Amino acid sequence: MNENMKQTDLALLQALCGVFAPSGNEVAMKDFLIEYVEKKSAQWKVRPDLIHGTAFQDCLILKFGKPRTAVFAHIDSIGFTVRYENQLVPIGSPEAEDGYVLEGQDSMGPIQCKLKVQDRHLFYDFGRGIETGTELVFQQDFRETDDFVQSCYLDNRLGVYAMLKLAETLEDGLIVFSCGEEHGGGTVPFLCKYIYEQYAVKQALVADITWVTEGVQHGGGVAISMRDMSVPRRSYVDRILKLAEQSGIPYQIEVERSGGSDGREIHASPYPIDWCFIGAPEDHVHSPDEIVHKKDIQSMIDMYVYLMQNL
Amino acid sequence: MNENMKQTDLALLQALCGVFAPSGNEVAMKDFLIEYVEKKSAQWKVRPDLIHGTAFQDCLILKFGKPRTAVFAHIDSIGFTVRYENQLVPIGSPEAEDGYVLEGQDSMGPIQCKLKVQDRHLFYDFGRGIETGTELVFQQDFRETDDFVQSCYLDNRLGVYAMLKLAETLEDGLIVFSCGEEHGGGTVPFLCKYIYEQYAVKQALVADITWVTEGVQHGGGVAISMRDMSVPRRSYVDRILKLAEQSGIPYQIEVERSGGSDGREIHASPYPIDWCFIGAPEDHVHSPDEIVHKKDIQSMIDMYVYLMQNL
Amino acid sequence: MNENMKQTDLALLQALCGVFAPSGNEVAMKDFLIEYVEKKSAQWKVRPDLIHGTAFQDCLILKFGKPRTAVFAHIDSIGFTVRYENQLVPIGSPEAEDGYVLEGQDSMGPIQCKLKVQDRHLFYDFGRGIETGTELVFQQDFRETDDFVQSCYLDNRLGVYAMLKLAETLEDGLIVFSCGEEHGGGTVPFLCKYIYEQYAVKQALVADITWVTEGVQHGGGVAISMRDMSVPRRSYVDRILKLAEQSGIPYQIEVERSGGSDGREIHASPYPIDWCFIGAPEDHVHSPDEIVHKKDIQSMIDMYVYLMQNL
Repeated sequence: MNENMKQTDLALLQALCGVFAPSGNEVAMKDFLIEYVEKKSAQWKVRPDLIHGTAFQDCLILKFGKPRTAVFAHIDSIGFTVRYENQLVPIGSPEAEDGYVLEGQDSMGPIQCKLKVQDRHLFYDFGRGIETGTELVFQQDFRETDDFVQSCYLDNRLGVYAMLKLAETLEDGLIVFSCGEEHGGGTVPFLCKYIYEQYAVKQALVADITWVTEGVQHGGGVAISMRDMSVPRRSYVDRILKLAEQSGIPYQIEVERSGGSDGREIHASPYPIDWCFIGAPEDHVHSPDEIVHKKDIQSMIDMYVYLMQNL
Repeated sequence: MNENMKQTDLALLQALCGVFAPSGNEVAMKDFLIEYVEKKSAQWKVRPDLIHGTAFQDCLILKFGKPRTAVFAHIDSIGFTVRYENQLVPIGSPEAEDGYVLEGQDSMGPIQCKLKVQDRHLFYDFGRGIETGTELVFQQDFRETDDFVQSCYLDNRLGVYAMLKLAETLEDGLIVFSCGEEHGGGTVPFLCKYIYEQYAVKQALVADITWVTEGVQHGGGVAISMRDMSVPRRSYVDRILKLAEQSGIPYQIEVERSGGSDGREIHASPYPIDWCFIGAPEDHVHSPDEIVHKKDIQSMIDMYVYLMQNL
Repeated sequence: MNENMKQTDLALLQALCGVFAPSGNEVAMKDFLIEYVEKKSAQWKVRPDLIHGTAFQDCLILKFGKPRTAVFAHIDSIGFTVRYENQLVPIGSPEAEDGYVLEGQDSMGPIQCKLKVQDRHLFYDFGRGIETGTELVFQQDFRETDDFVQSCYLDNRLGVYAMLKLAETLEDGLIVFSCGEEHGGGTVPFLCKYIYEQYAVKQALVADITWVTEGVQHGGGVAISMRDMSVPRRSYVDRILKLAEQSGIPYQIEVERSGGSDGREIHASPYPIDWCFIGAPEDHVHSPDEIVHKKDIQSMIDMYVYLMQNL
């Protein structure tokens, strides 16, 4: 494939980044994905089964062929909840800078307000009061250059986008769209239970966004993480690294002390499922200005296509 | 119903608050409840099945009819463990003020001693040494005015009391008395497993005590929490708020950044069970002087009766 | 038995402490144990079933007769992961002093380097760069006096050693060798699931190392913990203490506010399994100089033999 993203792909990524789905309220993302898959999957190599419903809350699983490996991509985003008066409390760990534009809706209508930060406390600035419990998210400002894509919520709509590209040619595997990752998780445990009990799947990959550091740079390829706050099983990570080397696809090795993902919950679940985090690096994490190199997006997609065939 | 609590009800609440049951040692509360239910349930609308035994540790489940929803009420309390010499370590997060009277028992007999606080370390002051590992709890000083009830351990004996009032007319549902909530939990995971596998229950409510804040006040009605440290699923909370509105029963909406309950463990369990915290607000939390408005007690009971019928 | 350890036993303990098995990479310890058990168990009172394989990751269960109780002993150790350049990040919570000798291996060959500590950041000092992701552990310096044994990784190879001694005469029970304990756990949940579903085991003991304090001293006997950061169920701990008293074996009662073990994960699992921590106290915890009194080692073995017969 070409490093320059097709306009249709770019439009898809932009649309994904614009869906309102803070942790705990992912219905719109689930509906978007179901509609997209139902419309597009006729042209895919294999048409997947769609698994969802009350036993899955707002999660969605795509089942292709005979799965050996599951990829987890979370569909929720960070945001803010309106407390009392003009106070806000964070959903997940958003960057909070004075003047960021926030959007949402309550029973009185649509909202577009400004974030105010005073003594590390968060407030909104708006012409009227907003109903207690209303969720607000960053206003989208989608930007593209020759090399970069920039928007709020590339974390993790880019992971979701990579999964939809993977889905076009996937023959065997599970794509698991999880909820709540940005705010303490909660859906991965029952998703693990399902995939292990139904399909005996013991291999997982986590398609999510990591951060640019001194060791993982823009344009160097998708990051394969040997550890973050959790330490995955070395023998599994070694198998993945060996395949990555064989693939010829550019990648970077990541080692961190902190940071977590759906991998943490797979690790802690009562199912013996191995996991490894694989995702593009970004800068300005959890802000309206998340930025990712196009080469790393392509490398992420290519790596998932290769690994899901060979792992 | 009348806002003035009946004297029999008040006596029940006082008795509940006086049972010795720090986290990890809830046998006396379980026995109290079993005896109470066996004696009283003949007059209830539906006589529940009592589910308990070694597979439930010191927990107790009351099963009424065909359950769609489970209410969790924890039966343990905060307290203190005797360490070495005259040192104490907390069970849960008790308020610790110099001079609080503590009670317990070791092999040498009953204990009534005073709490001493020095440089944030905790000690007891007593005429003799107390055996290592002995648990101490606040001495009860039950007080009543026209508007308020005050005692140690309204958190969560008031939740337990509300469940026993709910039980009188409940037709379909589970009342789940859990253990260990004040000190890291541990019983909710296997309780979730049981109620999901046996009854396919996917709806939970958490009957516990919250705190008075600028947004949740004494006498304003039971608090329905849209979030605390955990964010429950929005679509479920919205259904509850809609029913609460229809009910005509006074209630207050709570939004907090911190604080946890059995809801946190329901959220993290490998079962797709929705949850929402609903409980009366109190002041002087985790002290011997916990205080709750009688209107909020009545509103809590009424709301549970309504929701268990309509959810 | 004699307080002076036999030379063959000492050699076994030394060998165990020398196996490379930082959290996440316990394959060598699993292989060591399987080989040892296959070679030695013909002389044991009961020859156990060995349970392992992909559904158990790198864990190993020894099943003797009709198990009522499971003992958990973790086989992983603390260590360090090489990050970028000459940086290190900890695996678990190692003591980190300037000059400690670390060992490991990467694709370029064996490594023996020195730990450097600057402004609480960790680095290695070595003649060449070490590959990102390489794990390093303390170099072993095994020491013995009349009263003490000293080495890195007595935590928890001493627990493993005690289990291998227990195994010689055990008739009914499970010995569960777990992984990842030093770094957030992750295997105990699926091990609990297995032992509860296969054998309905509801009683667990945790064979691990604790620390010398004002209340638990070298030579006073194995420590039986009434609590640490988690509070186990009092009625279960009381049964164990009663048996310990009957046994005539020296022991010490521990009460702590902090500290955790595999017990924390047994507690939090969705299975109603009681647990109690029982292990020898050591000083210089998580350093290359961990030291334990020989009397406490013998008392730990004797206590496990007694409890597994009588619990």
